[in-house]
Amino acid sequence: MEILFTFIPKEDQQQRLISEFPQVNFRFLYKDKEHLPSADIIVTYGEDLTAADIATAKKVQWIMVASAGIEKLPHQAIAERGITVSNVKGIHKIPMAESALAHLLALKRSLPTIYENQRNKEWNRRTHSSEMHGTTALILGPGAIGSEIGRLLQAFGVITIGCNRSGAQADNMDEMVSFEAILEKLPQADYIISILPSTQETKYLLKEEHFRAMKKTALFMNLGRGDLVSDEVLLNALRNEEVAFAVLDVFEQEPLPKGHPYWSMENVIVSPHVSSHSGKYVERALDVFIPNLKEWLAGQTVPANLVNMEKGY
Amino acid sequence: MEILFTFIPKEDQQQRLISEFPQVNFRFLYKDKEHLPSADIIVTYGEDLTAADIATAKKVQWIMVASAGIEKLPHQAIAERGITVSNVKGIHKIPMAESALAHLLALKRSLPTIYENQRNKEWNRRTHSSEMHGTTALILGPGAIGSEIGRLLQAFGVITIGCNRSGAQADNMDEMVSFEAILEKLPQADYIISILPSTQETKYLLKEEHFRAMKKTALFMNLGRGDLVSDEVLLNALRNEEVAFAVLDVFEQEPLPKGHPYWSMENVIVSPHVSSHSGKYVERALDVFIPNLKEWLAGQTVPANLVNMEKGY
Repeated sequence: MEILFTFIPKEDQQQRLISEFPQVNFRFLYKDKEHLPSADIIVTYGEDLTAADIATAKKVQWIMVASAGIEKLPHQAIAERGITVSNVKGIHKIPMAESALAHLLALKRSLPTIYENQRNKEWNRRTHSSEMHGTTALILGPGAIGSEIGRLLQAFGVITIGCNRSGAQADNMDEMVSFEAILEKLPQADYIISILPSTQETKYLLKEEHFRAMKKTALFMNLGRGDLVSDEVLLNALRNEEVAFAVLDVFEQEPLPKGHPYWSMENVIVSPHVSSHSGKYVERALDVFIPNLKEWLAGQTVPANLVNMEKGY
Repeated sequence: MEILFTFIPKEDQQQRLISEFPQVNFRFLYKDKEHLPSADIIVTYGEDLTAADIATAKKVQWIMVASAGIEKLPHQAIAERGITVSNVKGIHKIPMAESALAHLLALKRSLPTIYENQRNKEWNRRTHSSEMHGTTALILGPGAIGSEIGRLLQAFGVITIGCNRSGAQADNMDEMVSFEAILEKLPQADYIISILPSTQETKYLLKEEHFRAMKKTALFMNLGRGDLVSDEVLLNALRNEEVAFAVLDVFEQEPLPKGHPYWSMENVIVSPHVSSHSGKYVERALDVFIPNLKEWLAGQTVPANLVNMEKGY
């Protein structure tokens, strides 16, 4: 049994794997594809495998993606071979929910202004701070991460409206609506927060009409995928002040190109796709992977966090 | 019955008072003390009354302070006359708790770095973000505000240790200790957050030994009063890296003097005493004042939020 990691865990994390699974031959190799042909299992961040790699990896039966996004995997090549794919959906929920709350609270409590005044060594008490308490959030994609954001928002006295494909109930949402009913709910929301994955249904889901339906004072936050809205639509909405502010952790093109207008817009925060970052990330991924691997070795049981490659999540 | 406001509420707030109390003669006068002699009740932010003013205000029986801090009132002159003093303790809890969480989350989730990289138009994903989840906070002064901070911290999975004079139980604290036991608990805390008022017991409560007992990675946040720790002690602790970071909303001298080292220290956030600011402030103060005034007019009942001028809170 050979398991190829296409990234390199810390020394103690490697030792954890080796001591848990003495019968397994682990290879930890960044950007080195020499051992693809002999790998039974591949552990990857999901961005480094091509269709040709899948063809080369003749023995692979399971690809474990140590992230949530699987849109860069060669879907067809994997589906044709019937390779099992699992991810670590859910392990991002703590850092991402903390990032979402950090951005919202920072803007409500005037931290950018406070920091700027400090740089200018200026004691200026006109900060125009306001409160999260009593506001309303519309959460697009209330899955593991979205529900955790909802839980924290509710603790701050924020009303939460969840929005998913079917409108089916999700945790920590005061109300749920389906994608089809989104236009009716947008005028109520002070924040529109997306954690949606990139799928055929979510690609360019938000159009001009959606931004026109939002409050002029609303904040739009995208922590999901950059193709939820085109740059053109979002730039127009921000320039025409159809919404007041955007916090963007994901972009149509990443890295965000030099010279892109977002970089210098006063009503945009550019966060370089880091909202899930955490020192605890790989440790938590291993917490998902290790029990899955135990079951797999015991009887090729399908792992938890299985990904449906057709649906795309 | 004449009531003198030494600050000027908004027009609709004035109308609210006038229509609730048609029998009362309200005067809304900023920095104009001409009407002190005829005032039965004075409503003030607590910073603009001298002992001479109290002598002039011959008729005054009740001073309502529309803030929490009463340390600038002329205590002796007020006590000698037996004037009732009340404040609006508790109405700061929402904005202050939101500010506390905003500062903590912003630092944990690298917002200052993200903002700086955006100013430099630099896509830099090395943000070294960490999490609040699983950390420990020591809260000095778990009253209305401190307990609200504790409630929110607990929602983020933070362990809360409260610290007050007696060690008596307070809401939303996993554990309580008295001021005397503070040294034992400091080594456990990732954040030390003070909301203590300025009293004889809290003045310079934190000394060199306390900062030496803190984790080197700890964050010290002062939202209470600036005389909790001397500049000398805190500057030394920060310069010697006995603690990693300070978020200061209050200072020994306010405004913080030009040229003060805090302004340019990389491990200090200077917030100009704004953590309680909120657009809802005066409205909430009136929500406390109006029922109190109704009871007072009905039978000179002692108001809620009575201040004990000897204890100082």
